[in-house]
Amino acid sequence: MKRALLTLTMAVALTGLGSTATSADPLPSWADSDARNRIIDFVETVTTPGGDDYVTPAERIAVFDNDGTLWGEQPVYFQLIFAMDRLADLAQDDPSILTSDTLKAAAAGDLETVGKGGTDAILEVVNASHSGTSVAVFQQAVADWLAEARHPDTGLPYDQMTYQPMVELLRYLRDEGFKTYIVSGGGLHFMRAFAEDAYGIPPEQILGSYADSSYEVIDGAPVIVKSPGIAFIDDKAGKPVNIERTIGRRPIFAGGNSDGDFAMLEWTTAGDGPRLGLIVHHTDGEREYAYDRDSHIGRLNDGLDRGPELGWVIVNMAKDWNRIYTGAQ
Amino acid sequence: MKRALLTLTMAVALTGLGSTATSADPLPSWADSDARNRIIDFVETVTTPGGDDYVTPAERIAVFDNDGTLWGEQPVYFQLIFAMDRLADLAQDDPSILTSDTLKAAAAGDLETVGKGGTDAILEVVNASHSGTSVAVFQQAVADWLAEARHPDTGLPYDQMTYQPMVELLRYLRDEGFKTYIVSGGGLHFMRAFAEDAYGIPPEQILGSYADSSYEVIDGAPVIVKSPGIAFIDDKAGKPVNIERTIGRRPIFAGGNSDGDFAMLEWTTAGDGPRLGLIVHHTDGEREYAYDRDSHIGRLNDGLDRGPELGWVIVNMAKDWNRIYTGAQ
Repeated sequence: MKRALLTLTMAVALTGLGSTATSADPLPSWADSDARNRIIDFVETVTTPGGDDYVTPAERIAVFDNDGTLWGEQPVYFQLIFAMDRLADLAQDDPSILTSDTLKAAAAGDLETVGKGGTDAILEVVNASHSGTSVAVFQQAVADWLAEARHPDTGLPYDQMTYQPMVELLRYLRDEGFKTYIVSGGGLHFMRAFAEDAYGIPPEQILGSYADSSYEVIDGAPVIVKSPGIAFIDDKAGKPVNIERTIGRRPIFAGGNSDGDFAMLEWTTAGDGPRLGLIVHHTDGEREYAYDRDSHIGRLNDGLDRGPELGWVIVNMAKDWNRIYTGAQ
Repeated sequence: MKRALLTLTMAVALTGLGSTATSADPLPSWADSDARNRIIDFVETVTTPGGDDYVTPAERIAVFDNDGTLWGEQPVYFQLIFAMDRLADLAQDDPSILTSDTLKAAAAGDLETVGKGGTDAILEVVNASHSGTSVAVFQQAVADWLAEARHPDTGLPYDQMTYQPMVELLRYLRDEGFKTYIVSGGGLHFMRAFAEDAYGIPPEQILGSYADSSYEVIDGAPVIVKSPGIAFIDDKAGKPVNIERTIGRRPIFAGGNSDGDFAMLEWTTAGDGPRLGLIVHHTDGEREYAYDRDSHIGRLNDGLDRGPELGWVIVNMAKDWNRIYTGAQ
């Protein structure tokens, strides 16, 4: 941190009044903490030309989980709320699509019943609400929903519930020549509907779970149609596999918040040279939610047990972040 | 073309002697032909700021098939020759891996027998030679093979059998703000072993067929291991599906050479705004190979039948290219 501050002071002195607030402090929503200092030290280490640990821009790959890492995930994954709302919309036109008690509960907004069904129930609801249309139609539905829906606790639009410190971190990394990616268990097409606006991450840098798609020519117009079923779940070991398949490079920075991210951080930080793993620990029951080992969502055991010995930064949201949501000061 | 020449002349005049040969003629290996003119007209149209058909750099996505489009594919796919050579190598250590007549023929270099088995035989040979190692070990094997192996007809290293006019086209597109991708039926990991050097295309912009992979921690070191079986074949309708899934944008330029590329070009060129589809037609039996409708590899019917009416550029290799291979003048 001392080196960082010195560098910044010199930069400000050299450029006179030309520096903006951003260049003066790339992470204004982060408290002056060990977490913040380690991030900045890492970035300076890999971007200092001539240094032993210099990394070329092409290899500056940073990957981040989305739910619970870049935006909220309580009381349930936001995508599930979208899925239930969309199922209700679709069922207004055709009630026969509600073929099970789970789907009926979902369309009625009965989160408790859906939640009790666990992963199977979630997949059933997602499946029923996410397939059978073109990608374009689906993504318009997500955009329409984001414009209208409000979070039950905060009253914020969901895409305003991004974590401002993480939005700043993404921007800081890109300013330092990193390529930032999302690698999430959430749906690929769902995320692409908002991630470029919310995070500055373009569609080709968003990896997620997906169903199969089909290529169809309808009335002479070729279109990609979302099929039912889940073809790939981008979670746990699936994350490094998907990163290797899609990006073809091993990241040097990985951020997550749950045991679903463990393999991604493990693979990232076990590589040669400088590496950084970062875990967002949800410790702030007042401004956000406090949960870890016993949570039904975003369960975090391995990261807390083994992360510190692996050199990972464990972000204490309550202490390390001056601000939580982008949409609320 | 007149506009292009005028622009170039003006650019040369304005910059005096500063222009290099590249900036004076971005496509020196292309004959002054309709194909060349249409490519340059298209690129100028989408890159002219303020024009009605201006396309922002983020949307300048260009996708290319590999085998038969960017490098040769006769007498058989080069990856199959690699697979047979590697199978022979592996069988030296453990002959028991040759569990079928097809595999025995492959290890013996008997292309004719393997060829007679069709796609199933090819997949069997690829499967047996491409799995069970880490991606890193596999890609080293590809690199070693490329350094040693020579093409039976030309005597060239395979990675010198890239088509120089296409290498120039890729570079020209990138110079004009395009992002260039490979979208090939060939193996993802195979291509990534040479495509950055050969074409200037980085690993994250290479899409191909792939097997499943697994994430394993071996002696404490996490590694991605190639599994047997083919999980995804990046051909025909699979190409637009894979592009949509991986890139998330509809390209504005697509190049191919066979009916396996038809859907990719169809999807690309049916979009709104300016689009270009390009088919490399193998017409040069002297300098390369002449084949199309009846070929066992790179069969081209739909592209010849429907490409012209869809506005695609059909490149006549014999007439439109002054030079074929990068490795031979």
